[in-house]
Amino acid sequence: MDHIKTSDRLLLLSDEELSRRLGHIDAAMTASGLDSLVVCSATNTYYLSGRVFCGFAIYIKQLRRILWMVKRPAQLKGEDVIYLRKPEQILDCMNTLGVTPSVLGNVGLELDEISYNHIQRQATALRLKTWGNADGVLNIARATKTPYEQSLIRQSGISHEHVYCQIPHLYREGMTDIELQIEIERTSRLEGCLGLFRVSGPDMELHMGNILAGDNADSPSPYDFAMGGAGASPSLPVGADGTILRPGLAVMIDVNGNYTGYMTDMTRTFTVGDLPDEALRAHEVSREICRELADMGRPGIAAKDLYERAVAIATDHKLEHYFMGHRQHAGFVGHGVGIVINELPVIAPRSKNILQAGNVIALEPKFVIPHVGAVGIENTYIVQDNGPMQCVTNAPESIGILGDNQWA
Amino acid sequence: MDHIKTSDRLLLLSDEELSRRLGHIDAAMTASGLDSLVVCSATNTYYLSGRVFCGFAIYIKQLRRILWMVKRPAQLKGEDVIYLRKPEQILDCMNTLGVTPSVLGNVGLELDEISYNHIQRQATALRLKTWGNADGVLNIARATKTPYEQSLIRQSGISHEHVYCQIPHLYREGMTDIELQIEIERTSRLEGCLGLFRVSGPDMELHMGNILAGDNADSPSPYDFAMGGAGASPSLPVGADGTILRPGLAVMIDVNGNYTGYMTDMTRTFTVGDLPDEALRAHEVSREICRELADMGRPGIAAKDLYERAVAIATDHKLEHYFMGHRQHAGFVGHGVGIVINELPVIAPRSKNILQAGNVIALEPKFVIPHVGAVGIENTYIVQDNGPMQCVTNAPESIGILGDNQWA
Repeated sequence: MDHIKTSDRLLLLSDEELSRRLGHIDAAMTASGLDSLVVCSATNTYYLSGRVFCGFAIYIKQLRRILWMVKRPAQLKGEDVIYLRKPEQILDCMNTLGVTPSVLGNVGLELDEISYNHIQRQATALRLKTWGNADGVLNIARATKTPYEQSLIRQSGISHEHVYCQIPHLYREGMTDIELQIEIERTSRLEGCLGLFRVSGPDMELHMGNILAGDNADSPSPYDFAMGGAGASPSLPVGADGTILRPGLAVMIDVNGNYTGYMTDMTRTFTVGDLPDEALRAHEVSREICRELADMGRPGIAAKDLYERAVAIATDHKLEHYFMGHRQHAGFVGHGVGIVINELPVIAPRSKNILQAGNVIALEPKFVIPHVGAVGIENTYIVQDNGPMQCVTNAPESIGILGDNQWA
Repeated sequence: MDHIKTSDRLLLLSDEELSRRLGHIDAAMTASGLDSLVVCSATNTYYLSGRVFCGFAIYIKQLRRILWMVKRPAQLKGEDVIYLRKPEQILDCMNTLGVTPSVLGNVGLELDEISYNHIQRQATALRLKTWGNADGVLNIARATKTPYEQSLIRQSGISHEHVYCQIPHLYREGMTDIELQIEIERTSRLEGCLGLFRVSGPDMELHMGNILAGDNADSPSPYDFAMGGAGASPSLPVGADGTILRPGLAVMIDVNGNYTGYMTDMTRTFTVGDLPDEALRAHEVSREICRELADMGRPGIAAKDLYERAVAIATDHKLEHYFMGHRQHAGFVGHGVGIVINELPVIAPRSKNILQAGNVIALEPKFVIPHVGAVGIENTYIVQDNGPMQCVTNAPESIGILGDNQWA
């Protein structure tokens, strides 16, 4: 199939890379008792093939074979690639590819991500009586990033850092939080940011990022992000609300790091100047929590132990009332990051996740100080085989002065 | 409840506005045999309350009453507003509000938009044996915009037009399509664009808009938009691909008009100069199709008749091979617009939709001319009680010259 030009080749992953991903998937399938997966979401078609396409990827573990049923774009080619117009043709397509339905065994469908009606339609097309959850399997598999996926994340981290280092220069006196965000968005896009912010779950949506100045950091939001903000419209009540940036306010900047299809997540705190001592102190405690959790974060440790350690440090410093919000508190201090911003593991009190080498985790121990705003940092880390987690978002961690050239 | 401050008031719609929306919903419920709706998506909580919240809105037709069960933000207040931590508490919350489950009757859930597992969880929490599709009802209700919704759409149209009029000035020689898009995004955001582009369906995602220069307009994409484009990454294969803008290429610009929570959809064609006659001619045919369909678009006409007329005009001009794409053809010429970019009615060959006053419809008869690119226009129209549809996206329709001040 070497004659197919790259733009028309369905499978963009190397054999070695696909084999590694299938290794993670096989382990999770064995644990869950599934024999095959039927996948159609953008995130999971991308994970399996290296490109988003419209159609189905059907993975049959026993055969170690993926059947690619493509609706759009129709010109895609490769081994086991077949054109399909609608889900009702899945069994016919399998037949054409010489695969009998009985080898599917226990089938997993994407029950967490795909709508009820689409799942029913798929199950009917496949003549299934019962089915399991492919998302359970794929979320576990995707939590352990391959070396190639890690390299894409590192690459995003470098671009993300370049953008953050420009933030102090983007400020002009009298700017609102929204105006600063717009300049950061432009700088991000010029640096190669794809813009789209993939987030999982029915309650989650955001445009590119979240900038919170002053008391807006304490405005509760409907979304399950670490911080909220009133936003600019009741149709999207999150983030910047038009607050004018002035001395004495903390400006927390948490913007999109999707430069490669794999995201990094990073937050830094800025100010025009004159933050009260308590805010400066809380910011240093956030850095301390990140350092300590990065050191603890090794294969085999429970995610909930990281969370508890973070709370303990905040409490030691008598900052627990401000930790992860003040009027409304987030129930986690970190989360996996990858194709989507909220992957496994979840660093939360009731998390059952155990860290593994190759997990990529954003830690965001943040504090909301009344009348000042949100302070603290967020970094993305890769869990190593040995030693502390490795940070891939290496912008300076001190509070940046907007308008100043000397952030470090 | 007048003492509640606006930011904490759940219901942001006036009684009259809510009553109008419930009128549309009641009619659709009667037609579908549903007695109550359980709604949790961002789009539908926004439609029912005027704000996005996390939780459930339960509408009981017989009582003409909405029960608001709110998880986040927890401080929201008002009549029939109750705090809920998880779906399993729905029946307890109903009980607290003095409503017996039996009044729910035939319940509709959001089967098109909400994941299989979430729907199962809701059905279990409500102890339902059977359920209908609330999305079917709400999509029909939402297709007929109230005067207030129309005013929000008109407002978006005015901002959208202001942005388009600035496009010729944003061009600099040697720019790529992506660089021009970034400047348009910034201009849009400064004009008040919320950025987020709400689109319905599992196969749909886009960052702010689509700019297609030259042959990239003919690159097929996995998404079900009118035009495709290769995009900048296989993780988001749609839109601008880095093509340098040069004389002889058509540059089609179709960017986000979400300024109010209600969107307009508009496309204009630009060039650096020197488009071949066939492209100029096809552009005029697109304008002709828009004019003719706007005149035909009156209450009672079938959506499919509009589609067929568009194809007939394209065929009369011997442009049918370029109509709605060349390598890959879109199967529609228009679509409803509102909170989401792809609402009812659908202007497509097999559409069963009949136009009604208050429908808001984007018409986008576009042509892809090989080696030149995409030409044509898109406007958003409101269907009137009498007379032709009214256009709300009134930027000049001629091909704009990038870098030139005289677009009209």
